[in-house]
Amino acid sequence: MDGRMKEIGIGLLGFGTVGAGVVKGLQANGELVADRLGARPVLRKIADIDLERDRGVSVDPAVLCRDARAVVSDPSVDVVVELIGGTRVARELVLSALENRKPVVTANKALLAEHGPEVFKKAAESGVDLYFGASVGGGIPIIRALREGLIANRILSIRGILNGTSNYILTQMEEQHSSFERALGEAQQKGYAEADPSLDIDGVDTAHKAVILASLAYGFVVPMRSVHVEGVRNLSEMDIFNALALGYRIKLLAVVKEFGGDIEVRVHPALVPLDHVLASVSGVFNAVMVQGDLSGQTLYYGRGAGQDPTAGTVIADVADVVRNLVAGCPRRVPAVPLVRRGRRIRSMDEIQTRYYLRMSLLDRPGVLGQITSALGRHNVSIASVLQKEVRVGEYVPVVIVTHEAIEKDCDAALEEIQGMDLVGAKTVRLRIEE
Amino acid sequence: MDGRMKEIGIGLLGFGTVGAGVVKGLQANGELVADRLGARPVLRKIADIDLERDRGVSVDPAVLCRDARAVVSDPSVDVVVELIGGTRVARELVLSALENRKPVVTANKALLAEHGPEVFKKAAESGVDLYFGASVGGGIPIIRALREGLIANRILSIRGILNGTSNYILTQMEEQHSSFERALGEAQQKGYAEADPSLDIDGVDTAHKAVILASLAYGFVVPMRSVHVEGVRNLSEMDIFNALALGYRIKLLAVVKEFGGDIEVRVHPALVPLDHVLASVSGVFNAVMVQGDLSGQTLYYGRGAGQDPTAGTVIADVADVVRNLVAGCPRRVPAVPLVRRGRRIRSMDEIQTRYYLRMSLLDRPGVLGQITSALGRHNVSIASVLQKEVRVGEYVPVVIVTHEAIEKDCDAALEEIQGMDLVGAKTVRLRIEE
Repeated sequence: MDGRMKEIGIGLLGFGTVGAGVVKGLQANGELVADRLGARPVLRKIADIDLERDRGVSVDPAVLCRDARAVVSDPSVDVVVELIGGTRVARELVLSALENRKPVVTANKALLAEHGPEVFKKAAESGVDLYFGASVGGGIPIIRALREGLIANRILSIRGILNGTSNYILTQMEEQHSSFERALGEAQQKGYAEADPSLDIDGVDTAHKAVILASLAYGFVVPMRSVHVEGVRNLSEMDIFNALALGYRIKLLAVVKEFGGDIEVRVHPALVPLDHVLASVSGVFNAVMVQGDLSGQTLYYGRGAGQDPTAGTVIADVADVVRNLVAGCPRRVPAVPLVRRGRRIRSMDEIQTRYYLRMSLLDRPGVLGQITSALGRHNVSIASVLQKEVRVGEYVPVVIVTHEAIEKDCDAALEEIQGMDLVGAKTVRLRIEE
Repeated sequence: MDGRMKEIGIGLLGFGTVGAGVVKGLQANGELVADRLGARPVLRKIADIDLERDRGVSVDPAVLCRDARAVVSDPSVDVVVELIGGTRVARELVLSALENRKPVVTANKALLAEHGPEVFKKAAESGVDLYFGASVGGGIPIIRALREGLIANRILSIRGILNGTSNYILTQMEEQHSSFERALGEAQQKGYAEADPSLDIDGVDTAHKAVILASLAYGFVVPMRSVHVEGVRNLSEMDIFNALALGYRIKLLAVVKEFGGDIEVRVHPALVPLDHVLASVSGVFNAVMVQGDLSGQTLYYGRGAGQDPTAGTVIADVADVVRNLVAGCPRRVPAVPLVRRGRRIRSMDEIQTRYYLRMSLLDRPGVLGQITSALGRHNVSIASVLQKEVRVGEYVPVVIVTHEAIEKDCDAALEEIQGMDLVGAKTVRLRIEE
């Protein structure tokens, strides 16, 4: 290899799973990357509060330190890679690095989704790069595809399976006929879910990613508070199997859509037709389907998490920064193309979709007619009905699939119906995305 | 919009389907693209020999001309977009543009696959950009993913369905129980196949794309002559349905693989397991699955051809060039990272794979034993046998699926077997990719 190749110093903040993956990846493929780049990223500093734990990777002890701030200000560090996670220390360090005019690569979706405006503004003011490819989709280069590959497109919609933990749980519930609790336990045992899994199973992680994708697609930072978020925690096996019987699979989806100039950003379980390619994404895999006005549907599929895939995307971002430093063109691609006025975010009341309604109804003549009438009074019409059990005079589960309706109307209809004495337990309402 | 935004002049060579798509795309989304880029690509010249035909798009007549050379040398043209196709005029114009230090965007896979070294060398010498995202995969940003998104990876394999015409024919043959000829006729009627379809159905188009992908993955220009190419022309319905019965679907695949430091680049129909995601890519869609050592499997799926998707990718390349011109960093990403010595390309004799063999065998006791022995003498062992018809004393089709074997051994075995009097028509041999 060329000894005179330009070297770019990398400072790593956080030596956890992904951090160790980046170190391993650079050790394994550093020369290959240098060859492809014509410049060599060199790991100069790694900061972590725990320097004892064995990460399965050997590092020159001189590189390790406990002081992340010292890494940020170290003159041998040209690029700061933030892999600490969370929004407190990470925010402070990222802002400080940008303030010091050091380009930053981060995989921190929470930071960007919660503090996007502040972080993007600081990067713009300092005139340095901020790359975050690994914040969505792990090893899948979806951020790059959306920001650069699809740049010619008006983005009509994005639908993504973006949380491997939730998707693994849903796959287990279906394939092993597990309850949610058992599937979650299994995911935790296999290391696919955290001890506190709420960020994953309550949809927050997916919402962070949806915010990032929506911001890239529509050129303004979508506030987290305007995103409707439901996770998979309350899904029951019954609905998973009812959905299958109707030709659908339930997936936790991030949905980003343009509608009459406004946009929708929402995260919730949704019924996806079995013949749709997103329905076949199982286990810990992620996939994103983008509908562009020119390119049509394109799909990106791969490992949405994990040490090596995420590290691969972090290193790809580092490579971009290295190219920009070598060519002298920082901010060739702005972090987010913040050029448009914000769009109005539609409230959930306004969305239009089809619904899966599982009602607990008294099994007696005329009941379905009353339900149909109530739905009809609120402009919700029925596409099909599934009733498996017959127990005259008792409450039985009845599944109703509606035609497209406005969510506000559906809510009003369900409120009216819930008040009727022929309805038992609270109706389960899921959305259908096709 | 910002009237003082920097303008970059585009000269279009070729006003055919994709050319008209680029014009339409820029008319529809030009402001959006300018917003995202912070600079505005402006169409300054369009050259075509036919200026009369209606392309369904209105253009200022002053922009149109018949002299492509004049477009290349026009001082108002900063970027040359070559959409003429073919390897004669296009080669000359592309070389001339590069010679004139004008960056080039092209969708011309034949040019790059047949004259890659010359064209890439000229771009490097002139220090200008050469982008070719639309040469593979139409609307799918696969070139960008491979060159930049997966840069941290050693590429272990690439498997792609890259020719919409062939894939449409295969889908029709299966779904409509069509013969190859009827399916081809239908494809021609729908505009999915040319009047002379040989580039598509004989696998040459796929081979051009395989060469481009392999060159990007392995950093040297793979010569077309070292690529094994078989198309779908001779496929029979019988094999399509036998494959289905065995749990496979036949697809025309580009296979690029690393094996012990050497690489394989081959194009041929292959049996793909039905539960593999490539098996579900139907009709005119394309898909590419890349196996990287860090990112694992990632898949890219979308419309592999067509006016709008291809134009979308051409405009994305133009956007890259515009960014580089504005930021003053031409060749930030070299066309092909030509940094490694070439690798040895394995001959087909050396490849190892499983085989589907449809033999015409005399239906009498002991025949299968003789076949098994002959295969065994050449180190080919049988995994399963499918015989549907029984006609004692006559030739019947027998399908044999082998375990992994070396192609040279398989060839030798088939040669020996073909010489036996218990064998009728020539054995059909297809490869299995899993």
